[in-house]
Amino acid sequence: MAAKPPVFTSDFTETTVSSELDYDGGLLKVRRDAIRLPDGHSGWREYIVHPGAVMMLAFVDPETILLERQYRYPKHRHFIELPAGKLEPGEEPLSTAKRELIEECGFEAREWWKVFTLDPSIGYSNEVIHLYGARDLHHVGSKLDVGEHLETFEVKFSDALEWVRDGIITDTKTTFGLLWWDKFGKLP
Amino acid sequence: MAAKPPVFTSDFTETTVSSELDYDGGLLKVRRDAIRLPDGHSGWREYIVHPGAVMMLAFVDPETILLERQYRYPKHRHFIELPAGKLEPGEEPLSTAKRELIEECGFEAREWWKVFTLDPSIGYSNEVIHLYGARDLHHVGSKLDVGEHLETFEVKFSDALEWVRDGIITDTKTTFGLLWWDKFGKLP
Repeated sequence: MAAKPPVFTSDFTETTVSSELDYDGGLLKVRRDAIRLPDGHSGWREYIVHPGAVMMLAFVDPETILLERQYRYPKHRHFIELPAGKLEPGEEPLSTAKRELIEECGFEAREWWKVFTLDPSIGYSNEVIHLYGARDLHHVGSKLDVGEHLETFEVKFSDALEWVRDGIITDTKTTFGLLWWDKFGKLP
Repeated sequence: MAAKPPVFTSDFTETTVSSELDYDGGLLKVRRDAIRLPDGHSGWREYIVHPGAVMMLAFVDPETILLERQYRYPKHRHFIELPAGKLEPGEEPLSTAKRELIEECGFEAREWWKVFTLDPSIGYSNEVIHLYGARDLHHVGSKLDVGEHLETFEVKFSDALEWVRDGIITDTKTTFGLLWWDKFGKLP
């Protein structure tokens, strides 16, 4: 049964006065907008413009999923993560998920389903992550991008949850995906 | 019992060759580093330099927590979130948590404990979020920053979880905090 949604009457909407691309990096794009605050005052907001991303709960069998391990330079260490990737321009999220599961993990899946939509960094990025489930996997071989180095491995879902409990997995999108599926997920 | 940690032998470490502050905005700082990839090739990484943040599971009673609702300009809509805030320069995370719980929610707590450390955007930010629990709250009145508009409300923890299930709460740090506490948390 759906929970009774909360009812709010306050409106804190900030309206756009003007918008400019203030930083145009090789990866990151920062916009800086002049805004009107809900109290009528002027202000500004800076935020990353992000193409959107996907993340996959790929089931090798009903108790086993794929995880990846890679080095994340901004944090200067390796992380264990659910497979994920960014949308190419004009790409549908499900197409990205199918492409990335092959490129990074080397698997095609015969069955896909949508799980959830995450908003991972709402304070300073418009990024959205589309979480998909996949099963009936068959191995076709990975095709990593140039400069992309990672390893894929299989793990019991219950072990992955213990790694979340123990702080071995701390990547927030991954911890969310595992915990949400544990509590609410059902294989189709 | 602690889970058996995974054992990995691959090393995908990327080493810093040089680093520069490439964008120095009012809020966002972007560094662009020249790096050496694990295969010996050259590359670059761009990432947000973030001061770190805190998030609070503040218990009004054992079944009730504080949530906030505010407008998040990068996403152009309102979000329901756990109370959170950024570290000031030189500030200890627990001091930030105590300060923000007063400023945003108007509550002091007599008891605090550390819950978890989150890495919310490892692909393009060095941000870390320290999650604390707080209880034995007493109301002292909020002191919102200029330009900060939000409302705080009390909700049954079980209702908040249903809002996560139903996609009413999608902010990833908040969904993580609620799901992690539901599965692994214990009041001290």
